[in-house]
Formats: sequence, C-alpha cells, structure tokens
Amino acid sequence: MGANTSTALGVSGEAAEIVVAEDPGVVDLFAVLAYGEISAFYRLAEEAKLSPTLRGKVAVAKMAAAEMGHFKTLEGALADRGVDVFDAMAPFVRALDAYHASTDPSTWLESMVKFYVGDGIAADFYTEIAGALTPEIAEIVRDVLEETSHSEFVVEEVRNAVAQNRADRDRLTLWGRRLLGEAITQAQYVMAQRDELTDLVLTATGDLNGIAMLFERMQNSHAERMAVLGLG
Amino acid sequence: MGANTSTALGVSGEAAEIVVAEDPGVVDLFAVLAYGEISAFYRLAEEAKLSPTLRGKVAVAKMAAAEMGHFKTLEGALADRGVDVFDAMAPFVRALDAYHASTDPSTWLESMVKFYVGDGIAADFYTEIAGALTPEIAEIVRDVLEETSHSEFVVEEVRNAVAQNRADRDRLTLWGRRLLGEAITQAQYVMAQRDELTDLVLTATGDLNGIAMLFERMQNSHAERMAVLGLG
Repeated sequence: MGANTSTALGVSGEAAEIVVAEDPGVVDLFAVLAYGEISAFYRLAEEAKLSPTLRGKVAVAKMAAAEMGHFKTLEGALADRGVDVFDAMAPFVRALDAYHASTDPSTWLESMVKFYVGDGIAADFYTEIAGALTPEIAEIVRDVLEETSHSEFVVEEVRNAVAQNRADRDRLTLWGRRLLGEAITQAQYVMAQRDELTDLVLTATGDLNGIAMLFERMQNSHAERMAVLGLG
Repeated sequence: MGANTSTALGVSGEAAEIVVAEDPGVVDLFAVLAYGEISAFYRLAEEAKLSPTLRGKVAVAKMAAAEMGHFKTLEGALADRGVDVFDAMAPFVRALDAYHASTDPSTWLESMVKFYVGDGIAADFYTEIAGALTPEIAEIVRDVLEETSHSEFVVEEVRNAVAQNRADRDRLTLWGRRLLGEAITQAQYVMAQRDELTDLVLTATGDLNGIAMLFERMQNSHAERMAVLGLG
C-alpha cells in the first residue's frame, strides 16, 4: 500500500469530520467495495442458473456486467493511489466469502431477494460512510453504488410471485431477515479486523453510539425495501 | 420479426454483393451473435472457477462483462428493426449450447485455449460476412467482435504453461483441433436450419465454393492463433 503516507484521523468524538483523501481507511473502503463487486459478479452469474427463463438469465448477466464496471472504477482509484487492487482486497476475501456462503439461495426467488436486499444493505452502509468523505472520494463511492435499472426486474418478479403464494411470502420474509443479520455479522467482523476502516466508520458516524444509530437506520431502510417486494 | 418487410437477395453467383440492411439474414446474424455473447458470458463465468488465482478470475470476469456490452449493442440494433432479441435468438440456442456442451473444458488451461481460439474462430467467420454488409451493419458486427485486451492475459498464461510442459502442449494441441472441428460442425448445422442466414453467407462469399474457401482461410487463421499460444 505504497501511497499511504497518510494522516489517519483516528477515533473522533465528533460527527461529520471530513476524512482526508490519504486516510488509509479510504484504501480499505475501496478495497472492500472492489471485492464486493467481484464476489457479486460471480454470485450473480452462478445464481442466474436458477432462472427459469432466458430473459431472467440475461437480466442477471447485465447486473453482473455492471458490477465489473464498478470494479474497474475502484481498481483505477486504487491504482491512482499506487495501490494494487489484489493486495488491497486480500484482507476482505474471507468475510465476504463467508457472507455469501452463509446466504446461498436455494431457489430463484431467494436469489432475487438477495440481489435486491443485499445490495440495498451494502449501499446504505457505504452511502452513510461516503457522507464523511472528501467530495472526490464520495463521488467514487456513490458511482459504484449507483442502483441499476435492472433491480426493477427483481421487484416485479418477486412481487408477482408472493402475491400469489402465501407460503413463499412467509419463507422469503424470514430469508430477508437472515440476509440482514448475516450482513451485519460480517460487517462487524471486518471492522474488528481492520482498524483503519473502523476509524473511518467512526469518523463518519461520530462515535460508537453513531454506529449503533447507523445500524438502526439500516434496519429501517431494510424494512422499507422488504415492503417494496411485498414482504415483511 | 415485424420490421422485415425485406428484399432477401437469395443465392447469388457473384461475390461481394452488398447485402441490404433489411435482409432477414441480418436479423439472424445479429441474433446468433447476441446468443453467442450470452452463452460466452455464462461459460466464462462458469469456467473462471477453474482459475487458480483471484487475478485470473478477475481477468475472466472482465472478458465476460465485455460480452454483455456487445450483447446490449445487438439488442439495440434488433430493437431498432422492431425485433425482440429473445424471439430472434430462439432458433440458435440449440446449436450454440451444443457447441459449448461438446467442448466443456476440464482444466483451466483448456478453458483459456477455448476463450482465445473459440473467439478467434467466431471472429474470423463473422468478419468475413461483415465484408459483404452495408457499412452501418458491418460496423455493428465489427464492434461486437472487437478483440479485448484481456486476451493478452490468456496468451501469456498458456505460453508460459506449455513452454514448461510437453504433455500439456500435446494435449492442448489436440484440444485446439477439436474446438475448430466442433465450431465448423455447429456452423454448418445452423446454416442448414436457417435459409436466411445461409443466403446471407452465400451472398457474402459468392457461392458454395466461396464458403469452402472461407473455411480454408479460417483453418489457416486458426493455425496462426495456435502458434501464438505456443501450440500446434
């Protein structure tokens, strides 16, 4: 991580402190996002096999391709800082792989809910962090989190299915709760391992209480997303 | 295929006749290319699992994402002609799936040779056809065949591996021959099924003798590509 001749801000008791571009937490943030894109790519490609139609497979392939566009943005942003994306991603492989292994969908509907809800949880978390970053960094984070129009496809498929089937609706509601729980477990695991990232999150949220409030806001957004899908 | 109020040129004894934009063979050509991109996407994503490194997985994911960019170009070109890409692709699903099923790689090296050699064979074929198309159509075909820089990655991996291992070299040489044979078998199958596409190919190549010469040129290019990989 050659370019990090940085001034880590450390834990701050005050919210909304601007994180400088050279904070080593920024490299961690880009790296965890980058590995998130790669693992989402392969998960989407794998789970698309569950799609009963070619139309579904193509919609998912487009989502996967969009993830790779985001990966390239992050790879470039890390390269601009003299950091190799593969070195930077290494510390995050285990937690993200664990998240996907523990939430392996067994049906096409579970997989669709995971696309929508999982991406939403990640986007909430990183968008909050982006609020504390310098505009240049925040723009990169927002770019790679940009929601694709393909999620419309997911909403329609899931809503139609659960409107017709009460058992599916109950099962997918539980599935959605499990996704949130696993995501928070793994986020906490990552933060426990990576001091630089934890410092960045603390700077962004103010303090430990700020983190707790962030998780509460994430739970509320999650409930809203579940309602959009006709679940919960 | 609503927009095809066309003037099919039919079989022509003369080479280099320009195929008009409304030829129903053009819709078939875009459609077979489009399904080729989709099946390449899923094959790449699947075979990337064989990669021993994350670097290899990411290189392959980028190739796969490029295929989806090409798919969108073709989907748009078909939509401009009032044709739904899924309807248009349907006749080609069987032949392309059969090609991939009959050339399922069992190692990472076989899979790399297939990326490089299989894409090359397809590009040779379609580039020749593009020569007989109106500039607007030819440009779309060339755009979607554009070689990505990622194939450099393949060349390096395969050359290094076979330089060190004679048994690998012999095995991959046979594998390369099989890929060419299967591709030609499936191309002939498709043409036997689709009169419009056969007419377009005949118009592009002049006559049956022109098709034979086209396959001969494809064999020569194939031999050159194998040599680039250190094979044959």
